[in-house]
Amino acid sequence: MNGAQSLMQTLADAGVEVCFTNPGTTEIHLVAALEQVPAMRAVLCLFEGVASGAADGYARMAQKPAATLLHLGPGLANAAANLHNARRARSPMVNLVGDHPAYHQKNDPPLASDIAALAAPVSGWVDTAKSAKKLPSQGTAALRASLGPPGQAATLIIPSDCAWGESEPAVGPVQANKLAAVSAKAVETAAEMLSSGGPAALILGGSALLEPALHTAGQIAAKTGAALLARTFDARFSRGTGRPVVQRLPYFPEAAGKSLATYKKIVLVGIDAPPTPFFAYPDASVQLLPTGCEVTALAGCANDATAGLAALSEAVGAVDTKFFAPEPKRPQAPQGQLTPETIGAAIGALLPENAIVSDESVTSGGPAYALTTGAPPHDWLCLTGGAIGQGVPVATGAALACPDRKVLCLQGDGGAMYTLQALWTQARENLDITTVIFSNRQYAILRVELERLGFDHPGPRITDTMDLSRPCIDWVQIAGGMGVKAAQTDTAETFYQALSRAMAEPGPCLIEARI
Amino acid sequence: MNGAQSLMQTLADAGVEVCFTNPGTTEIHLVAALEQVPAMRAVLCLFEGVASGAADGYARMAQKPAATLLHLGPGLANAAANLHNARRARSPMVNLVGDHPAYHQKNDPPLASDIAALAAPVSGWVDTAKSAKKLPSQGTAALRASLGPPGQAATLIIPSDCAWGESEPAVGPVQANKLAAVSAKAVETAAEMLSSGGPAALILGGSALLEPALHTAGQIAAKTGAALLARTFDARFSRGTGRPVVQRLPYFPEAAGKSLATYKKIVLVGIDAPPTPFFAYPDASVQLLPTGCEVTALAGCANDATAGLAALSEAVGAVDTKFFAPEPKRPQAPQGQLTPETIGAAIGALLPENAIVSDESVTSGGPAYALTTGAPPHDWLCLTGGAIGQGVPVATGAALACPDRKVLCLQGDGGAMYTLQALWTQARENLDITTVIFSNRQYAILRVELERLGFDHPGPRITDTMDLSRPCIDWVQIAGGMGVKAAQTDTAETFYQALSRAMAEPGPCLIEARI
Repeated sequence: MNGAQSLMQTLADAGVEVCFTNPGTTEIHLVAALEQVPAMRAVLCLFEGVASGAADGYARMAQKPAATLLHLGPGLANAAANLHNARRARSPMVNLVGDHPAYHQKNDPPLASDIAALAAPVSGWVDTAKSAKKLPSQGTAALRASLGPPGQAATLIIPSDCAWGESEPAVGPVQANKLAAVSAKAVETAAEMLSSGGPAALILGGSALLEPALHTAGQIAAKTGAALLARTFDARFSRGTGRPVVQRLPYFPEAAGKSLATYKKIVLVGIDAPPTPFFAYPDASVQLLPTGCEVTALAGCANDATAGLAALSEAVGAVDTKFFAPEPKRPQAPQGQLTPETIGAAIGALLPENAIVSDESVTSGGPAYALTTGAPPHDWLCLTGGAIGQGVPVATGAALACPDRKVLCLQGDGGAMYTLQALWTQARENLDITTVIFSNRQYAILRVELERLGFDHPGPRITDTMDLSRPCIDWVQIAGGMGVKAAQTDTAETFYQALSRAMAEPGPCLIEARI
Repeated sequence: MNGAQSLMQTLADAGVEVCFTNPGTTEIHLVAALEQVPAMRAVLCLFEGVASGAADGYARMAQKPAATLLHLGPGLANAAANLHNARRARSPMVNLVGDHPAYHQKNDPPLASDIAALAAPVSGWVDTAKSAKKLPSQGTAALRASLGPPGQAATLIIPSDCAWGESEPAVGPVQANKLAAVSAKAVETAAEMLSSGGPAALILGGSALLEPALHTAGQIAAKTGAALLARTFDARFSRGTGRPVVQRLPYFPEAAGKSLATYKKIVLVGIDAPPTPFFAYPDASVQLLPTGCEVTALAGCANDATAGLAALSEAVGAVDTKFFAPEPKRPQAPQGQLTPETIGAAIGALLPENAIVSDESVTSGGPAYALTTGAPPHDWLCLTGGAIGQGVPVATGAALACPDRKVLCLQGDGGAMYTLQALWTQARENLDITTVIFSNRQYAILRVELERLGFDHPGPRITDTMDLSRPCIDWVQIAGGMGVKAAQTDTAETFYQALSRAMAEPGPCLIEARI
């Protein structure tokens, strides 16, 4: 049994079921090992940013890591932008990166580079395999590291002689580190803060946004009058009818600051720091919380937020409290012009129960979020790290994690171009994903930012760098070229029809929404 | 004048004419500055790997750097694979990467990451702007660093407050460091080696492969009987009728070793080390040169190889020697099945004078190279670093550098999927590029490697990870979706016709060659 076989068996035995891969010569033995390990499903991606984004989406929904298999430094580098997003989502994953054997690395062949250096900024854990014998136990260490808590990418660099060399049998299951308990003191402080009167808010993140923690947070909010808030972007919002409503902070700092201005007391649950603006602007503060606001942390990312909230609920007497949750309420089928609002209405009207929404809609998706508050229970996945090109890959991974749930990807056209290769994997694996492309033919967010920065009449050389209309991208052709059936829509009615059809039929499809 | 304006003016004054860009909010002031600096042409790329690959292609042909403008860590990471190729090509370029101001970086906003760490493995020089005032002089330092010699990527990280803050006027021209002179001793040693009898070879790289150095090398070879060799992949081969023929080493190490086996004496010109295999294999040597072979370096990458060859030519008395160069010879128009051979014949028959070939054809392009030996003078650009996804972007940059020359991109389908967004930029800028997609619907090189590694009957789970036929990629639709007209061909005749048309008509087009 060579190192590659033992490693793959070890990971599979420990419950890793999927490997998103784009291999090369240095990974051939690792690929070949998959033949002997049928419990590990290999999913081919035609660009590594698809693999890392899919592993992120998989982790957000499966709540466990997938593996990626990447080709030396360039493969890892191609994966890095979505690894950045995954880092912000605290998604566990194990990256296996092939490399030259040390005895050849010193010859500095064309593909040689400092993989560990490239991996460090986007991985919580990096190591290089020492020998074929040690490879399986180093795989175990990587898997364990990926689990955290909090979850993170663990990158194991595998010189190819460690893959092809003789090794030992697989290592067996991996014991994850436990979540750190929330201290009695933290519960007490939070309880006092919420019981002492004055406007208060819980800012939830990570696992606190998921059931059962979310349910408990809703009860605490109902009992104490505290608001339930979240950062603008988090990995996964469980929402819809029957679930507590969490208010996401607005994107722009002025608006976010205004939303927070009324609160004197903030309890952080499942996040390590208070919200911060996405960007800094000239002559503007980068603080969002009002001056004098008291902040306490009930649970950070590595803590057991669920148990912490349960203890807090008991402390404030919220255990049997009925919480506010939206009643079923769907918008009417929209008519007329195709706009973010009418698209949002169509989505609100049609989103099926248990859907997963992968949202990289940037400037166009606000109405869809607002108009699905009363839709059946569903999950909403956000662009956590701001690196565009996440939406379509994350949808791909989510669909693999949850084959019985409909996935809806809301994707701006600019970001869609970054990792459009994911459509091919969706076709290949026949994944149940509907991709809506908000085709506004510009980097609209930059036009907004220009205005905010006082460029009221930007010249043509400026606006040209934000313009995607020359030439116009035809998403129906692009999707068709990768085996995904697609439709172009330019009225609310045609969009509604196309979305109805897509929600009714399984399998991948794309709707280009020309807005 | 803010820092951004002064920086852009400084770079333009120093001769940087093109900026390949995909900006975001942190780069808005840098984009806005372009309005005031018309001498700098902004070329929008819909993915940063296109920007860095295009800057590489531009540098290889213009022999001077372009700038790139990238959005924080993820933008740099997306550019990194083609920066790796550019590093191996020793292409100069200046990467401008926006970042958060330090006072916001410490809040760890979503897009924050360690950009300098990500940049280091793919840049020869990295610095972070200290202030708006210092930004233009740091830009000068970056430009100077990029010029080397040898050329390299210089990455300047620009916290956005350095872009928007008040600065000083532009800095003025940049003095490049001179190439290091080749020592008299090095010339003498090489001359002795070549004159002492026994089979010898010059291994040329970098500038030694371009005129006028190539011409001189040809004379030396003719005079001394030495062979002219090169590594399998180099940045740019000037070749065709009237130019000395340089033998590129075969890709696989056994064949390369066999090619080198007869030589007892090797002179390196324009490269820093003898050739090395692309990959290591079990139980195989990673040395290519025969045991006991004497090696001397006439000129490394940072040396003046042109002057060094001139001095060597004088020392061996080759100054007036007539060198061997291929006579004009073109293949017949091919007929029958569409194969790499018939495609190569069509290219050999039709390649126009002064064409630039961007070659990422991997397993399919060998015949095209062989069959263009007698074509009119042209330049051939190779995949220097092995990171696939170079071909289409490099073609894009080469076409911008040389608007009067036809660019032919020979591209495997696997690599084409990596950076297909470059087609959009080709359409937008109406570049004179013909892209030939070798559509074999597999990672064919991996099938070859499997066989070499003894996997004679690879199982379906293995071969599935190398198979691009499920679904089949339709390149005509994909190109059409990005505004590039395209044709699918599956016989030698239809390919020849499509290529004839493409060579006769200016502007971007794509030919899918189903082999």
